[in-house]
Amino acid sequence: MNDAPIRVLVWGENRHERAEPHVAAIYPDGMHNAIRRGIEDRLGARASVSTATLDDPEHGLTEEVLAATDVLTWWGHAAHAEVSDEVVARVHRHVLSGMGLLVLHSGHWSKIFTRLMGTTCTLRWRSENDRELVWTVNPAHPIARGVPHPIVIPAQEMYGEQFDIPTPDELIFISSFTGGEVFRSGCTFRRGNGRIFYFSPGDQDYPVYHHPDVLQVISNGVEWAAGDPARRALPTLLRYETGDFFNGHDYRGAMPDQETEAR
Amino acid sequence: MNDAPIRVLVWGENRHERAEPHVAAIYPDGMHNAIRRGIEDRLGARASVSTATLDDPEHGLTEEVLAATDVLTWWGHAAHAEVSDEVVARVHRHVLSGMGLLVLHSGHWSKIFTRLMGTTCTLRWRSENDRELVWTVNPAHPIARGVPHPIVIPAQEMYGEQFDIPTPDELIFISSFTGGEVFRSGCTFRRGNGRIFYFSPGDQDYPVYHHPDVLQVISNGVEWAAGDPARRALPTLLRYETGDFFNGHDYRGAMPDQETEAR
Amino acid sequence: MNDAPIRVLVWGENRHERAEPHVAAIYPDGMHNAIRRGIEDRLGARASVSTATLDDPEHGLTEEVLAATDVLTWWGHAAHAEVSDEVVARVHRHVLSGMGLLVLHSGHWSKIFTRLMGTTCTLRWRSENDRELVWTVNPAHPIARGVPHPIVIPAQEMYGEQFDIPTPDELIFISSFTGGEVFRSGCTFRRGNGRIFYFSPGDQDYPVYHHPDVLQVISNGVEWAAGDPARRALPTLLRYETGDFFNGHDYRGAMPDQETEAR
Amino acid sequence: MNDAPIRVLVWGENRHERAEPHVAAIYPDGMHNAIRRGIEDRLGARASVSTATLDDPEHGLTEEVLAATDVLTWWGHAAHAEVSDEVVARVHRHVLSGMGLLVLHSGHWSKIFTRLMGTTCTLRWRSENDRELVWTVNPAHPIARGVPHPIVIPAQEMYGEQFDIPTPDELIFISSFTGGEVFRSGCTFRRGNGRIFYFSPGDQDYPVYHHPDVLQVISNGVEWAAGDPARRALPTLLRYETGDFFNGHDYRGAMPDQETEAR
Repeated sequence: MNDAPIRVLVWGENRHERAEPHVAAIYPDGMHNAIRRGIEDRLGARASVSTATLDDPEHGLTEEVLAATDVLTWWGHAAHAEVSDEVVARVHRHVLSGMGLLVLHSGHWSKIFTRLMGTTCTLRWRSENDRELVWTVNPAHPIARGVPHPIVIPAQEMYGEQFDIPTPDELIFISSFTGGEVFRSGCTFRRGNGRIFYFSPGDQDYPVYHHPDVLQVISNGVEWAAGDPARRALPTLLRYETGDFFNGHDYRGAMPDQETEAR
Repeated sequence: MNDAPIRVLVWGENRHERAEPHVAAIYPDGMHNAIRRGIEDRLGARASVSTATLDDPEHGLTEEVLAATDVLTWWGHAAHAEVSDEVVARVHRHVLSGMGLLVLHSGHWSKIFTRLMGTTCTLRWRSENDRELVWTVNPAHPIARGVPHPIVIPAQEMYGEQFDIPTPDELIFISSFTGGEVFRSGCTFRRGNGRIFYFSPGDQDYPVYHHPDVLQVISNGVEWAAGDPARRALPTLLRYETGDFFNGHDYRGAMPDQETEAR
Repeated sequence: MNDAPIRVLVWGENRHERAEPHVAAIYPDGMHNAIRRGIEDRLGARASVSTATLDDPEHGLTEEVLAATDVLTWWGHAAHAEVSDEVVARVHRHVLSGMGLLVLHSGHWSKIFTRLMGTTCTLRWRSENDRELVWTVNPAHPIARGVPHPIVIPAQEMYGEQFDIPTPDELIFISSFTGGEVFRSGCTFRRGNGRIFYFSPGDQDYPVYHHPDVLQVISNGVEWAAGDPARRALPTLLRYETGDFFNGHDYRGAMPDQETEAR
Repeated sequence: MNDAPIRVLVWGENRHERAEPHVAAIYPDGMHNAIRRGIEDRLGARASVSTATLDDPEHGLTEEVLAATDVLTWWGHAAHAEVSDEVVARVHRHVLSGMGLLVLHSGHWSKIFTRLMGTTCTLRWRSENDRELVWTVNPAHPIARGVPHPIVIPAQEMYGEQFDIPTPDELIFISSFTGGEVFRSGCTFRRGNGRIFYFSPGDQDYPVYHHPDVLQVISNGVEWAAGDPARRALPTLLRYETGDFFNGHDYRGAMPDQETEAR
């Protein structure tokens, strides 16, 4: 219905790529650019994709930028703690207002994901060159379109259960690893007016973001997570008089002498 | 299996009862004591119930107290902002470790609930003496045992959708109000190793915590939320070597020169 | 991605409209044609809509017709029992293979819906001119786009809980009625490769299928339920040899001397 | 609350054990008796366990027997087709009325399970002595109590995704196999007033029903699935007059000249 392209912002921490030569060899211009190209190649005119990184001013995530973003993708790892709390609060507000969010791989432990989930988001892991198989358990879901069953990723870090997340709204993919571990690797969550997709394949040590099926899933996720820009608004507590369903008014405090600070 | 009584702690903000005479008239010794008696009357020897309030030292929620609590019930309203962040972090950790939590009525906007949910937890409301009907939509759930369909609450504050919470793991009750609004009034959530039950009936201005069906639901909720004290532990990120499923070891940082601070 | 129009088939029992003058006055050419026009007006070139009714040969639901249908909408009431079991089995197979299905109002008790759900699909009801309010509880869902919160339907049959259905995959709308009853009025279910949307507003005695918001929801539901025609296939039990993830072969029976009849 | 023992009926097809010597060697008195003993050993006085098999009159599942059963466990394989449709309809009615049901392993393709699920319940499989690891993904669930993470089953048939079932209400266990396949091996479903637990470990060719962790899960499942005998009733469609929430009366047909046969 809406023919405007989806405005996608690919956010990357971009530290491993600069600090570790073996990562730079795989991703010479950063994982964020590999992901950007993957989305552009697959969505074409249906998306308009840009990038931002941790070391940009305000991490490249100003109010103006977020207000003009339909879907944000997030990859971070070594420097989660360096992301400013103020920016995290801003991203959180935009997600609850309707901005889509894709959280990738080690982003499971980012400030924005743990804040949205409310849990520790911990897991078991090992980086020993496991093969990962990504099995589809929700074949009717649009995020699963166009990928084989299973997706075969020859070399990957292992992420295993228990993955301490809330029950996903939809479980789309389950992965297994050479060592026998399993992981809920593709999960959706609705929070406020926003849609969130967590997808675990992807690591700085392996060329996972060059894998065509992984990029297809990310592209599907972008299309799925895009909300309706016309409805972008933060859920708000309002009072509604009897019989008037459409005109809420401001809350004025929990006791007669209080104002809006608490309730 | 475990015949030890469930150790229940009923937490009350206990401000409205002291500041507002019409509330004190309904709850002379506080809402928390009305709730405590309701649980004791129904669970008998199956529960051991105590209380704590906001003005106790550390709000009555020290590490020692929480470690000896199987299920915490939470009612707050006017003074959410006065609850210390340190205590909230402590309660949060205990819930994720396996302590049960019942969040009652205006507790929807407490720090602990919004932190666990990750959303605004806002809603529409009105305090105009609506009748509330509480309909069971999950009749096989133990929390719905022993109550009529619907529960009829003659006078209540209205809480209406949209209630900005994550999709509940289980939706047990839906309420309607005289004005025609609806509300997901009984919802469960699993977070970490803990179980959470949100139940909306209950307001300081009406004698809802003297209603036998409301007290029955709260008692059912206590039994449902009680976890296994022997398994109380916070989910933790650990590395597991190939072939060793049972002995994880500590994480040592995301890059070779990092230690445990980040990943 | 796929620019071909969605092939929609609106199925109507078409008995009340011919047997009862007050129904014919509201729907001179049948409810199915009111629904067809509502979809055409809203989806335009994105859909190609046709109709079929109970009294057509094979109820208008031959193998050829179903194979060329992306989304089927179903309205039945007085004559559920007249729908042939063979046709029901055929529709069931197509839904599990990936055809979308919208079940409308009294279709809750149709053979196809109870077969897909596995439950009685019973409810409480009353036809006494209640006002129905349809509240959105999943604002980020595409089926909820473009409708007010709540949708106000001035006159309607009452459908109330307990509605004996499986837990929906997604709960999108909850209705209340003048009498105070509530109903899960908009629910999605994934079954096999197909997507199902149940939407309860709509009755032969009231002009509900002329209500613009109701028609908007149905049109949204059609877009949501449309699967990928290229993936239309019935899930099948197959044996896979170790290491070969992509070439299953036929099952040959549960014991050495058995063939495919059982397992 | 209710101190009466749970009345458990373990149903076994009991054909492989008699027709195949290698199965008889593992289960001399049948898999149903191994399961019975496992429940008795773990639940003790909390359960009263009996057995029935396919070749009993009415398969041992008369109206009287089912009315006195709180939880039925079901294992079938080679002879699914021999189970009478009349008995299946009876079991189906009792589950929807509130009898608990555990469906074990190859019971996924039984008439009762496919009828309750509404889907094909197909999967991929292979019997080549895979190791199965059963990982807990819902650690706060009572069915997961007292078992290691993972459960290690040295030799098993492989069951893999896609498992064509409705989205489970709760996903408790995910298994992996030597070959890399994954399977949602522990799933709950609520249908009508009844609770259903599907648990996949268990095969006639391997001694899985002698594995203590498997028997622990089955015993936990029995306790979880037991409903409230006092509330045993089939959901029924009734008319309720405005303002009378508690006295429904019979439905009299969809049109003025119809009686109860249709609606």
